Amino acid sequence: MAVTNEDRMACGVHLSEDLKSVVIVDQRQLPNRTVHLTLNTVSEIYDAIKTLAVRGAPAIGICAGYGMYVLAREKSDLDSQAFVRAMEKDAETLISSRPTAVNLSWAVKRMLARIMENRDRPVPEIVAQLAREATAIHDEDILMCTRISEYGLSLLKAGDGIITHCNAGPLATSKYGTAIGPMILAKERGIELKVFADETRPLLQGARLTSYELEKAGVDVTLICDNMASMVLKSGQVQFAFVGCDRIAANGDFANKIGTSGLAILCKYYNVPFYTLGPSSTIDMSCKSGDDIEIELRDPAEIKTMWYKDPMALPETKCFNPAFDVTDHHLLTGIITDRGIVYPPFDVNLKKLFG
Amino acid sequence: MAVTNEDRMACGVHLSEDLKSVVIVDQRQLPNRTVHLTLNTVSEIYDAIKTLAVRGAPAIGICAGYGMYVLAREKSDLDSQAFVRAMEKDAETLISSRPTAVNLSWAVKRMLARIMENRDRPVPEIVAQLAREATAIHDEDILMCTRISEYGLSLLKAGDGIITHCNAGPLATSKYGTAIGPMILAKERGIELKVFADETRPLLQGARLTSYELEKAGVDVTLICDNMASMVLKSGQVQFAFVGCDRIAANGDFANKIGTSGLAILCKYYNVPFYTLGPSSTIDMSCKSGDDIEIELRDPAEIKTMWYKDPMALPETKCFNPAFDVTDHHLLTGIITDRGIVYPPFDVNLKKLFG
Repeated sequence: MAVTNEDRMACGVHLSEDLKSVVIVDQRQLPNRTVHLTLNTVSEIYDAIKTLAVRGAPAIGICAGYGMYVLAREKSDLDSQAFVRAMEKDAETLISSRPTAVNLSWAVKRMLARIMENRDRPVPEIVAQLAREATAIHDEDILMCTRISEYGLSLLKAGDGIITHCNAGPLATSKYGTAIGPMILAKERGIELKVFADETRPLLQGARLTSYELEKAGVDVTLICDNMASMVLKSGQVQFAFVGCDRIAANGDFANKIGTSGLAILCKYYNVPFYTLGPSSTIDMSCKSGDDIEIELRDPAEIKTMWYKDPMALPETKCFNPAFDVTDHHLLTGIITDRGIVYPPFDVNLKKLFG
Repeated sequence: MAVTNEDRMACGVHLSEDLKSVVIVDQRQLPNRTVHLTLNTVSEIYDAIKTLAVRGAPAIGICAGYGMYVLAREKSDLDSQAFVRAMEKDAETLISSRPTAVNLSWAVKRMLARIMENRDRPVPEIVAQLAREATAIHDEDILMCTRISEYGLSLLKAGDGIITHCNAGPLATSKYGTAIGPMILAKERGIELKVFADETRPLLQGARLTSYELEKAGVDVTLICDNMASMVLKSGQVQFAFVGCDRIAANGDFANKIGTSGLAILCKYYNVPFYTLGPSSTIDMSCKSGDDIEIELRDPAEIKTMWYKDPMALPETKCFNPAFDVTDHHLLTGIITDRGIVYPPFDVNLKKLFG
C-alpha cells in the first residue's frame, strides 16, 4: 500500500504545501472551533506541544519530525558546523517541551541521527534527507493505523454496535487512528455501524475528541457518560468494545485510560467481546504483567474544577485521580495490532509475534 | 427513640425558631456557598421546590409539610370557610411546583386531610393540629433515617472502606440520610471509616452533595470519577458498597441513579458486598421486577453543556442520557430498610416484611 500526499494532508498534523511550516489542528479548541495553527519557529512548535495544542503520542512524534525538518530548512544557508550546532540546540528545546512523551524524543533523535550520518555532506542535501525522514515517520504511522483499522474492520459487519472509551483517533495519531480506525474505515467502505462513545472523565477525551472525530467522519455516534455503559451493554445494541492502549505487558495485561478496566468487566458480564487496538510499539515484552506498570496520579483539580464555571467540591475534599488503569488479560478477547490480531493465550501468542 | 427539637433544627429543612418560616439550605449553591433561605409565602415555597433549592423526595415532603403549616399560621385570623378555601388554593399551588414528586403531593394532601378533619373547629386549633402534623412528617423521616443508619452501621467496623454512588444524604432526607446515614452515624459514635464517593455524572450529586455532606460531618471521604471505581475496588480498600434506591421491585431488582448497576457488576467481580438502603416507601410490591420500571430519558444538554464554561461536544452529536438504571437482584447482597436488613431470596423475604 502506498501513502499519497492526499493521505498526509488529511491528517491532523502535516507539512504545509510550501514545505515551510508544520500545520496542526489545535486540539485545545475542539470541539467548538476547528482552528489550524501554522508553526514555523522552534518556540511555536515547543509551545504547541507543551500546551497540548497537539497531543497523542504518534501525533506528537509526527509534529516533532516535521518540526525538525522545517527548522532545518530555514537554516539551509548556514555552514555545516553551524547547522549541526543549531539543530542540536533546537532538538534539545523540542525534547524539553514534554519530557515524558516517549514518541517526542524518539522522533527528534531519529531526525538528529539522520543529520549526524550526513554531517559531512552539503547542508541542502542534509535538509533533503530530513524531508524524507519526517515523511517516513508520518507514512509509517499512516500505514500502521491503516493496518490496525483493516484488521479491526475484518471483525465487523453492517449494523454492528461498538462501544469505545477515551480517544485513539486521527487527531492523536494519523489518518484513521487506532481504536476508532475500524469505524472510520467502515464508513469509507459504506458499512454503517452504531458507535457509543464514553465521555471519559475527567479529561473528557471521549466527548471532546472521539465524538467530534466520528461525527465529522459521518459515523453514527452517541455520546454517553461513563456510568451509562452498563445500560447500553444491557440493551443488546453493542456487539464489540474497541479501546486503545498505552502499554501492553507480555501476558496481555494492558494499561489504558482510567475507566477501561471497568468497561472490560461490564463487557465480560454482558458477554460482549472486548478488544484493545494499538501499534506494535505499545507491546512491551520486557514488562511481565500489569503489576509492573506504574500508574500516574494526577491533580485533584481535574476532577473538582477543570472545565467548570464553579468548583464541584470543597477545596479540602480529597480526590483519587489515576490517569490510567490496568485491564487484566482474562477480560480481553483479542489484541488488534498492525501485525495481526492476537488471541489467548496471550503470553504464548504475543511472544510468537513480538518476542 | 424520641426526636428532639435539636435533631429537627440540624436538618437541611426545618421550621424557624419563631415558627413563622420554613428554613432550607439552598442546595443549588452547594458546595461553594452554604446559604439558608427563609421561606414565608406560598410563592417563595413554590419557587424553592420548583428551582431545586430543595430536592430529594423526603426533603421536599418535609418542606411542603412545614410550608402548609407556615401558610396556615398567617391565616389564623380568617373565618373557617375562608381559611379552608385559601389553604386549598395554596395546596394546589404547592403541588404544581413539581407535579411528578410523589412525596410532595403526599405531604400536602396529608396536611389538607388534617384541615378537612378539623374544619368545624376554630381556625387557631386547626393551625395547632397542622403544627403537630408537619412535625410528625419530619419526625417520621428522622426516625426512618436513624433506623436505616443503625441497621447499616451494624455491618461496619472501624477501618472499613465504603464506596457510594449519587446522593441520599441529610440534605435530600433528614438527619443522617439513608445511603450515607451509616457513615455519618459511625462518625458520631467515633468509628472511623474511609468513604469513596463517585462524582455521579452528569448531575454530579456525588461531588456536589455527598462529598460535601461527608466532609462537613468529618467523615474521611475521597472523591473519584465514576470510572475510577474499578481501580478503587481492585485496591482492596473497600469492604462495602452502599447506595440509595428510588424504587425496589418485589423480586429485589431496584432502580437508582444511573451508574448504580455498573458499580454493582464491578462489586460482584471484585467480591465486594453490595447493599441498597432505603425506606419502606421505596419498596413497591406491585412491581414484579425491574422490567416493569420505566426509565426517564433526559436532556443531552446535561451531558454536553451543563456546568461547563464551553460545550464539550458538537451541537449535532446525539446523547443517550437515562436518569436511572435497574440493578438486577442477583448483584445485591442485601436491602437495608427501616424495618431491618432483607437478604436473598428477596422475593420471599421482601414479602415477609412488606407483603
